[in-house]
Amino acid sequence: MNKSGLEWTEESSKAVFRCPVFSIRESRCRSPDNEIGAFTVLDCPDWAIIVPVIDNPKGKKFVMVRQWRHGSREISLEFPGGVFEPGEDAAQAAARELREETAYRAGKIQTIGEFSPNPAIMSNRVHFFLAEELYNTGKQDLDKDEYVEVELVNIREVFRGLGRPPFIHALMGTAFALYLQKTIADSNDFPF
Amino acid sequence: MNKSGLEWTEESSKAVFRCPVFSIRESRCRSPDNEIGAFTVLDCPDWAIIVPVIDNPKGKKFVMVRQWRHGSREISLEFPGGVFEPGEDAAQAAARELREETAYRAGKIQTIGEFSPNPAIMSNRVHFFLAEELYNTGKQDLDKDEYVEVELVNIREVFRGLGRPPFIHALMGTAFALYLQKTIADSNDFPF
Repeated sequence: MNKSGLEWTEESSKAVFRCPVFSIRESRCRSPDNEIGAFTVLDCPDWAIIVPVIDNPKGKKFVMVRQWRHGSREISLEFPGGVFEPGEDAAQAAARELREETAYRAGKIQTIGEFSPNPAIMSNRVHFFLAEELYNTGKQDLDKDEYVEVELVNIREVFRGLGRPPFIHALMGTAFALYLQKTIADSNDFPF
Repeated sequence: MNKSGLEWTEESSKAVFRCPVFSIRESRCRSPDNEIGAFTVLDCPDWAIIVPVIDNPKGKKFVMVRQWRHGSREISLEFPGGVFEPGEDAAQAAARELREETAYRAGKIQTIGEFSPNPAIMSNRVHFFLAEELYNTGKQDLDKDEYVEVELVNIREVFRGLGRPPFIHALMGTAFALYLQKTIADSNDFPF
């Protein structure tokens, strides 16, 4: 089968559920072999996740946020991030989320990659940024139902802790992989 | 605020949508400050993702799968994986998905970490495995609507490609971070 032989075409789509955070539709599609299938797709705005790095004399640290997560019902220590607001582009959303959640502003913020958070069932994208030259404004700007503690965490501690509490958010693992890509993938330090 | 001051308690929960892939409920919770909030939570079975590594004379390669993804409507080159079947544990699901999607069996398969795929809105977990000592049975076992091409990909090519097509599945980025954790986090090769 050639690569284009993998693509399905959408025949129709209808909304089946809506809530403030996302909506759901049923997508009726035609397979490469001309079969019809129905797939459930979750639509929501794009997200931004920011890897904020402070380079201090004791080594590099990430600025991370500790918060309660209502889906998994546990505390997560993760990179700041959130949903785009209407009209925002990815870099604007990243800078805003960084400032609101951590009180830090970045002198330098750059894109380091983009993924589908879950391409099997979600249509949106998650955009990753590296934030450097940070300075602390001293004031978070949280929503009424947000409780967010800011922590500086050693990079090696994060690397060793991935996949175990409190580092339980899969997308912070993705962000960490992109951070390593940016910093060591082309270096001789990378052993593969 | 101390750490336990971040936790919310659930007061009630009711189903608002069901489909074959997941169901959705509204969870009514009480904040650390005694405020009430309603949160939408998506329930589905746990997932397994497998990092299958072949160590051949030309270097290490991953066994990956190329497939059409209906949520993001694009082709993804990613690690094999899928949803637990009823009664399966994580290791069983991982071994089965590896065999069905890639035709490979593993002489050695071990857990390398566990995350919430999206702890803000999802209640399930994604379990990651490293599969080694692989042998090819020569026969995939795909569902009727699955079209999956198997490819051997250099580790460095995957690392450099993360966050750009065809490496667009965020959870394969998470899996890659765990693979690096397993192989280099404690070595002198890791520069942090």
